[in-house]
Amino acid sequence: MSADPRPTTRGPLALIAGGGDYPLQLARSLTGSGERPYIAALEGATDPAAFGAEADVATYRLGQLGGLLDELRRRGIADIVMLGALPRPSFGALRPEVSTLKYLPHFAKAFQGGDDHLLRGVVRFFETQGFRVHGPAEIAPGMAAPQGALGRRQASPEQRAALERGFSLLDALSPFDVGQAAILADHRVVAIEAAEGTDAMIRRVADLVARGRLKIGKGDGFLVKSPKAGQDLRVDMPAIGPDTLRNIAEAGLSGIGLRAGAVLVGDRATLGQQADALRLFVEGFP
Amino acid sequence: MSADPRPTTRGPLALIAGGGDYPLQLARSLTGSGERPYIAALEGATDPAAFGAEADVATYRLGQLGGLLDELRRRGIADIVMLGALPRPSFGALRPEVSTLKYLPHFAKAFQGGDDHLLRGVVRFFETQGFRVHGPAEIAPGMAAPQGALGRRQASPEQRAALERGFSLLDALSPFDVGQAAILADHRVVAIEAAEGTDAMIRRVADLVARGRLKIGKGDGFLVKSPKAGQDLRVDMPAIGPDTLRNIAEAGLSGIGLRAGAVLVGDRATLGQQADALRLFVEGFP
Repeated sequence: MSADPRPTTRGPLALIAGGGDYPLQLARSLTGSGERPYIAALEGATDPAAFGAEADVATYRLGQLGGLLDELRRRGIADIVMLGALPRPSFGALRPEVSTLKYLPHFAKAFQGGDDHLLRGVVRFFETQGFRVHGPAEIAPGMAAPQGALGRRQASPEQRAALERGFSLLDALSPFDVGQAAILADHRVVAIEAAEGTDAMIRRVADLVARGRLKIGKGDGFLVKSPKAGQDLRVDMPAIGPDTLRNIAEAGLSGIGLRAGAVLVGDRATLGQQADALRLFVEGFP
Repeated sequence: MSADPRPTTRGPLALIAGGGDYPLQLARSLTGSGERPYIAALEGATDPAAFGAEADVATYRLGQLGGLLDELRRRGIADIVMLGALPRPSFGALRPEVSTLKYLPHFAKAFQGGDDHLLRGVVRFFETQGFRVHGPAEIAPGMAAPQGALGRRQASPEQRAALERGFSLLDALSPFDVGQAAILADHRVVAIEAAEGTDAMIRRVADLVARGRLKIGKGDGFLVKSPKAGQDLRVDMPAIGPDTLRNIAEAGLSGIGLRAGAVLVGDRATLGQQADALRLFVEGFP
């Protein structure tokens, strides 16, 4: 194959695709560079038709892991990338087919812990089965936050100082396996994300402003987002998207600081245009 | 005066009383040990009649600071304790009387910063005027969390390990002037308090559980609360009360870990009984 211009040691690729727009963007990026990945669309999470008529796509339930591995081996595929939201686990989706049963003991331990533990277990499983797991940013570097601004606006030196404080806060939280995002405003930290997720945290700040509990001046108010130390960016990369920018603008905040190369932003040009339209800066920092 | 059995170098005391039950409890504690403090009840925050017919109480607007200082000096009072929620600032309450005008420059700087900065400014102001500011836990040690359990229940060794992790998290947040409380459940940190306050953070966790986003097993789920490093416990002491316990129980959590001596709990016996009735542990740690 491969008119792929990027230096790579990998062979043909399988994309295990969950929900959301990012698996579609990743597939387009690969197609754009002349690859035709084998796409395993997870049933209930993504529509296989969305990958286009030309795509080499099949649908799998989670319980069909055995069948998927058999198919990958038959095709000589040893390189995998996984991206997108998993389907809500249902007994139907999990019901293992016969070829999957033998793999279940591998997962018994992985399920006895938090999300990180589970994801690390999944990577380890594929590796013990002889596959290489690649991160989406490694396969399509253009989908990760670059260094610098996505649109026309840039953080001022003062705003940048607040963002640096935010990144330091996220670093300090890292050992506690929490805190991929925080919001700074009014010269202080006003929200820290834990189990509720980034969008709920942004709405909370909007609500504090609406109830007069928090004042955000013009040019004030920033989201910072960064992976935790040791987070496996191959299977668990933080991400922002058009909804994030819309929520940030609705909350009256001014911008977003991202750890460059470590947060998915999808299509940079589109997001940069949206940032300009909403008068936000969206900027990656080393 | 003073059948006060506690060794003290202080003279007669003024209590500057804001809203809530704690100023009333502090006044009762002083009366119980034979003191009769001069109570300056802040208008719009507390009802002077609530201190009882025997109390030596007068009402002041915030703008009557000058009059209050004159009265304290007239009475030979140099020792002050401040406790309770401030009234929502209104132009009416702030309107300075003539004797207050000369003090305004002292506050101009204090208002240009966060809450901590303001509170430190208030303490410094009273000190420059020749007053000593005492913390509520110094005046009434029984109102602070003791070491050990308030009721019959105690954290198990496993629960205690989770609480220690929570205290470490709060310590790590300290340099960022944020994070007096967090909630741990399901072997991870599920919520961190910032501008929203403790009660809103507890409701957020209850909401995640109600929407199936978070599972809390029996005996799982803990609030930890602790002051920030360098927090001035004389004017800014973290506090829990009956509402906190009720919210914790309603969220399906199992207990509360407090930094002993550094978090106000009000009447220990009452709170211990409530903890027993709600099947919670409420425990202070060194």
